[in-house]
Amino acid sequence: MKVGKKYYRTIWEDENNPGTIQIIDQRWLPHKFIIENLTTVDGIVDSIREMHVRGAPLIGITAAYGVYLSKKEKKRNGLGINFIFESADKLKSTRPTAKNLFWAIDEILSSINNNDNIDNIIQILQTKTQDMADKDVADCRTIGEHGFKIINDISNSKSPEQVNILTHCNAGWLATVDYGTALAPIYVAHEKGIKLHVWVDETRPRNQGAKLTAWELAEQGIPHTVIVDNAGGHIMQKGMVDLVIVGSDRTAPNGDVANKIGTYLKALSAYDNNIPFYVALPSSTIDWEIETGEDIPIEERNPDEVIFVDGLYNNEVVSILVPPEQSPALNYAFDVTPANLVTGLITERGICKATKECIAELFPDKIKK
Amino acid sequence: MKVGKKYYRTIWEDENNPGTIQIIDQRWLPHKFIIENLTTVDGIVDSIREMHVRGAPLIGITAAYGVYLSKKEKKRNGLGINFIFESADKLKSTRPTAKNLFWAIDEILSSINNNDNIDNIIQILQTKTQDMADKDVADCRTIGEHGFKIINDISNSKSPEQVNILTHCNAGWLATVDYGTALAPIYVAHEKGIKLHVWVDETRPRNQGAKLTAWELAEQGIPHTVIVDNAGGHIMQKGMVDLVIVGSDRTAPNGDVANKIGTYLKALSAYDNNIPFYVALPSSTIDWEIETGEDIPIEERNPDEVIFVDGLYNNEVVSILVPPEQSPALNYAFDVTPANLVTGLITERGICKATKECIAELFPDKIKK
Repeated sequence: MKVGKKYYRTIWEDENNPGTIQIIDQRWLPHKFIIENLTTVDGIVDSIREMHVRGAPLIGITAAYGVYLSKKEKKRNGLGINFIFESADKLKSTRPTAKNLFWAIDEILSSINNNDNIDNIIQILQTKTQDMADKDVADCRTIGEHGFKIINDISNSKSPEQVNILTHCNAGWLATVDYGTALAPIYVAHEKGIKLHVWVDETRPRNQGAKLTAWELAEQGIPHTVIVDNAGGHIMQKGMVDLVIVGSDRTAPNGDVANKIGTYLKALSAYDNNIPFYVALPSSTIDWEIETGEDIPIEERNPDEVIFVDGLYNNEVVSILVPPEQSPALNYAFDVTPANLVTGLITERGICKATKECIAELFPDKIKK
Repeated sequence: MKVGKKYYRTIWEDENNPGTIQIIDQRWLPHKFIIENLTTVDGIVDSIREMHVRGAPLIGITAAYGVYLSKKEKKRNGLGINFIFESADKLKSTRPTAKNLFWAIDEILSSINNNDNIDNIIQILQTKTQDMADKDVADCRTIGEHGFKIINDISNSKSPEQVNILTHCNAGWLATVDYGTALAPIYVAHEKGIKLHVWVDETRPRNQGAKLTAWELAEQGIPHTVIVDNAGGHIMQKGMVDLVIVGSDRTAPNGDVANKIGTYLKALSAYDNNIPFYVALPSSTIDWEIETGEDIPIEERNPDEVIFVDGLYNNEVVSILVPPEQSPALNYAFDVTPANLVTGLITERGICKATKECIAELFPDKIKK
């Protein structure tokens, strides 16, 4: 998408320096736009763990670039054959919940034969990462087209009034390579001239809604309003929300959805107020090995993310302490929304109900027998 | 309650300077403990509107002190008879949702006869404010005793394991003159040796949970953990919460409860997970003139409270900007939890179901025929 007047993806290989992967370091947004260069596996590992990049699809693609860099690094430093497998394990250990991480690493490893010539392997990996990134963009665009229909139907039913959509966290282009998942339908609808307005949950503790989603929408000129996570229930009760769309970090084949902590509370409230609640996701997010959301590991992150808040002060990004110094905190990063609260899943293959049967119908080639 | 080793209320008249009302300026907690002196109605008005004091019961008592000060000011400056009524109107206009504000002002105005000698009136008002403050303390203590039974029953059923209680916002002693409402049962249970632990919702946008509830509990030595508002659903799903207790800013006679924004989401989640959800309130919070929660006006506050976050940086309390500067925000201060999600109301007269019939049974003298 555009940042100012220039077009960006969230991750790319520097065309003048092959082997240098460039990312938008999202920790500084919206206050500073910083491009970071990554040339080693450890750099990629840090960028995922410390959330320079985040969002399940982008985590996956970044990890794929990590595998590619591991081969470059192996060659550069004359490392042993195990380096690529150790690197893959290290990349897999960065974050536990996002399914795309494991999917992308396995996908890229399966594309190579380690007995092949290393230059050939590097060439294959370079092409494969590029293809995976391109496919992510195409899938997100397709998710956008499918999801657009839902927004369009609502718009038709209440035109000339605007469609009010609530989203939680950031499942925008910054969470993918481009377009986004939950925000893709919004971008398509906006392109097609639908009158809409987005309620942006700030999304504590890391405020990806207030920082990233609000920034994305502002850059694309889409009307939006930041609200605290607590406010969603009240505005749903008041009829101020027509539709909820969120992303997913891991989806069970029965339709249970792991997503940013707090998603479940919004789903409960949407259900209580008869508001459609959709989850947009590329199928790489679906974990075909599990049965229900109960099987999804939920990441517990550093409590400092709860205790300290980052923001702009005197033109510098600083971190401030909110509770008393002696008070402990707990920081689960995700929760699981049970399928019965989900109206439907918007995937690159189309929209389906959040049930085992409907998911199996859309993905007969993936479902575990 | 105790702050360090010294006992405090949240508001009192300086015994060495009659006519000087002293409050804990809660905007600086937990980082700084600052006592503010108030000697004029305008000072009281500001202290309520700008939330130096907050919490429905404390707002009420502070406004009562405001009426008392208006008479002192009238005498000091030789002002006309209207000054006291204008002051009452000004005090009533500070915040729209907390019922106790209107109740306390009407209650104290009804105690005086304006044809009486002004020194007599001042004397009467001084005694009356003191009595109202003392009654608030006694009522809160009684609420604590009633609520204790609920905690004790849970403790008996799961002993020797601790009872895990979730609370939203601050309905502790800082929200009242002393003891608190939602926290009063916790203080009583702690005194009586019940093993308990409190989940403290940070309570955006003003973080009264992270700042005030955590500080109160830390000062009293009660085990607690700060969580983001988004986390409550997940920990309820995981069986980590035995009981929810919150306060109320205004309660309808049918059992609908207006409380800090986000309360409704926690009630939904408690209901979905079969966790008892209690609301602790002095009956001065009940609005006998309305029928349901739909009739409760919901305060909309300055969006800057969403956009800027206060906390400690380099030993100073500073305010940082979180979202992009150009993104608008919306800031509703309260929401309404429908009675069907409320397990019971803990009042100074005892515990009742959140139904019209049970409330009427407990308050036959108050209910509008």
